[in-house]
Amino acid sequence: MNNETLLFERRQKVLGNSPLFYDKPLYVTKAEGVYLYSSDSRRYLDCYNNIPIVGHCNPYVVDAIAAQSRIANIHSRYLSESIVNYSERLLSTFKNEFDQILFTCTGSEANEQALRIARMGNRGRGIICSNFAYHGNTVAVDQVSPLFHLVPQVFSEVRTIPFPELYRPLDGLSGAELVRRYIDKVQEAIASFDAAGVGFAGMILCSIFANEGLPNIPHGLLRQISETVRRAGGIVIADEVQAGFGRTGEMWGHELMDFTPDIVTIGKPMGNGYPIGGLVSRGEILDSFRNKAMYFNTFAGGPVAAAAGNAVLDVIQDDNLMANAAITGDFVRQAIDEMRGRFPFIGDIRGYGLWVGVELVRDQIDKTPATEETKFLVNALKDHGVLVSRMGPYGNVLKIRPPLVFNQDNASELLDALYKSFIATEQMPCVQNGRVKSAALSDMSGVAKVVSRNP
Amino acid sequence: MNNETLLFERRQKVLGNSPLFYDKPLYVTKAEGVYLYSSDSRRYLDCYNNIPIVGHCNPYVVDAIAAQSRIANIHSRYLSESIVNYSERLLSTFKNEFDQILFTCTGSEANEQALRIARMGNRGRGIICSNFAYHGNTVAVDQVSPLFHLVPQVFSEVRTIPFPELYRPLDGLSGAELVRRYIDKVQEAIASFDAAGVGFAGMILCSIFANEGLPNIPHGLLRQISETVRRAGGIVIADEVQAGFGRTGEMWGHELMDFTPDIVTIGKPMGNGYPIGGLVSRGEILDSFRNKAMYFNTFAGGPVAAAAGNAVLDVIQDDNLMANAAITGDFVRQAIDEMRGRFPFIGDIRGYGLWVGVELVRDQIDKTPATEETKFLVNALKDHGVLVSRMGPYGNVLKIRPPLVFNQDNASELLDALYKSFIATEQMPCVQNGRVKSAALSDMSGVAKVVSRNP
Repeated sequence: MNNETLLFERRQKVLGNSPLFYDKPLYVTKAEGVYLYSSDSRRYLDCYNNIPIVGHCNPYVVDAIAAQSRIANIHSRYLSESIVNYSERLLSTFKNEFDQILFTCTGSEANEQALRIARMGNRGRGIICSNFAYHGNTVAVDQVSPLFHLVPQVFSEVRTIPFPELYRPLDGLSGAELVRRYIDKVQEAIASFDAAGVGFAGMILCSIFANEGLPNIPHGLLRQISETVRRAGGIVIADEVQAGFGRTGEMWGHELMDFTPDIVTIGKPMGNGYPIGGLVSRGEILDSFRNKAMYFNTFAGGPVAAAAGNAVLDVIQDDNLMANAAITGDFVRQAIDEMRGRFPFIGDIRGYGLWVGVELVRDQIDKTPATEETKFLVNALKDHGVLVSRMGPYGNVLKIRPPLVFNQDNASELLDALYKSFIATEQMPCVQNGRVKSAALSDMSGVAKVVSRNP
Repeated sequence: MNNETLLFERRQKVLGNSPLFYDKPLYVTKAEGVYLYSSDSRRYLDCYNNIPIVGHCNPYVVDAIAAQSRIANIHSRYLSESIVNYSERLLSTFKNEFDQILFTCTGSEANEQALRIARMGNRGRGIICSNFAYHGNTVAVDQVSPLFHLVPQVFSEVRTIPFPELYRPLDGLSGAELVRRYIDKVQEAIASFDAAGVGFAGMILCSIFANEGLPNIPHGLLRQISETVRRAGGIVIADEVQAGFGRTGEMWGHELMDFTPDIVTIGKPMGNGYPIGGLVSRGEILDSFRNKAMYFNTFAGGPVAAAAGNAVLDVIQDDNLMANAAITGDFVRQAIDEMRGRFPFIGDIRGYGLWVGVELVRDQIDKTPATEETKFLVNALKDHGVLVSRMGPYGNVLKIRPPLVFNQDNASELLDALYKSFIATEQMPCVQNGRVKSAALSDMSGVAKVVSRNP
């Protein structure tokens, strides 16, 4: 029995079937910058992980955390300067007039508090989310996370609407009609809450619909949706746990997408791996919540969290990572676009900054999702030393989302592996230029089993 | 305007009325071992904080976290050895047959998942908790946290029962009758869930009823309660976020209290300030949950969390901190007991290991809570360089809960300050040997306003 198998079996005993990537899981022993290293000393280009935004094990961030951990690591009920400095600095990165922050440890906790806040008003309890959203793993947040429901679930205080997209637009509509249809869906949900006596609290959405597959969406739609929600007395919650901190080439996704939320929840890359999350909003909203809820979070809002968050902002700003995300991301998208003629299963190329989505289809007209081929590709890329994943409701969108320190050389390495893997994918019986509806892939050995519904 | 005032005003702007201890908040600039240092270079003996269990800024723990942060800080969907090692080691500290662990970042998240697990069975959705419990700050967990409800709240899936205690026993009962009455309360709650069609999922309780004021409770009661719950098909959740990791002189509170839960939730001191939490249970329970819920937590269960947790266990074991907690805690309780004759407002002295509760009353017969005097004492102790807090439904129980590296010299320092503060408290008009029902304290300047309901 080799090392991986032994470790896997020991893990199974104490962590059960806690999720793992790949059929043959990756045993990681070292991480540095944009690379992960496995126990057999292979090097992998990390085009998946969005937490280590300034690079795995960034020494500047590690040192900042360690230095503060040697001075004081206290809770937020004592006065402490660094968390105030960090809060002021973080708030200054928003163009909208957010003036207060509430700290948590995770994005799930941030969305929990956002839902509590939205529901504490007198408007009602109903929350709208997209039909393929994921906002976290707690009870309340799970209700607005249909992505993780193995069977569709109904909750009295939640309504889902189809997520907006242009590649497979709702009812085949386009232009103003399509926009109108999405707005109608929002209004129907609000009316349905009122009819049920639940009332309306607000809407939660990822600013870039990341788990939905990073769709292109009609221009101006999110602004119209948020105005619709607000006109009905609801709170607009932009979940930027994935979209925030420069990932899209802009600091915040809602600014890129041109709408104004009432609450923005943040997390994942905020501390480059140190557990921090939170939400920003207007003072009158947070004051009213704090007066009612007596919110306190043991680990959140302390000086070590501040040191981590501050160091991350330093690197993002000093190393121009937002510009790098925009430029390098566009370079990758353009290079993949140039492969289109050669590989007709490339259905759509999209994304913002250093988050690239490539939707694979079995034909360009019916857009039949090439789900098995995408699984195969994810594994082939791993064999070529590149880590990516899949996203979208059909699991047929390549999810390319490296740390933001990803440079042109790294991009070339990715593109080279992608080209080779695309060629390998062509050998699959099911991929053809024309229409092939069935694909007998079940006997293919070595096909990666990627956890299909992961955020 | 001095530094503290300036910082306080800046904090108010960005963090609003986020809770602070004391009317004049403590501005902490440095922490080491059992001491906190304020911006005016005063030293405070920390008899309050239960997170830095192996001492503030313990260099061994800080170094372990920093060292692993330089090697790899990855999520749990890659194989990683250290989290498996840590899980095996942690599980081996339990005498009961828990064989699986699920990691979170906070105690609130741990209790969230525990409630989800309890409610995912076919038993029902009703959860019983104590009438003065605090289990966290998320929506579901807040429902079982009446301590934080400014006005009593009713939830269809929650019933509260009076927490057990011997100092103010329910209906003035004692012995077997008292035990019977508490069991009746549990059975009434279960029956009420069934009558309402809600069904019964289980019960959550802090193994030592810490927020309830650390009461002495009838011998064997918790075993009988847990057997009652289990006989009705319910899951017993022991919240050991506060009681665990050697605080009581035993590793786990439920072992000290001699009952067998199905799930134990853990957190706070687990990483000495690094955000880790989790729960342990039996494999069949956790496997069933994971198959249904696809639980994943971005920051939890990674190698840095493992390094922090492992280093904490090293110190607890190598430095015999459990034995120290038992011995030093008993020394403190005995010394306070010896002050009883001198200070008749000492109503009850209790606790386990290095958690000492001193209940203050205005007379020994009616046990009228000396709430204002306890507030005064907390402030007087701060003036004498010792940090404590208050607990219990009347806020009249001194909460003495230092890091577990607290030694005999530290205990003497505490006792000296306590004696002086008790003398100062005698000067208060309301404290007398006999019965004084009213106390005109509203005009007292300098009386500490401690956040009364803090966990």
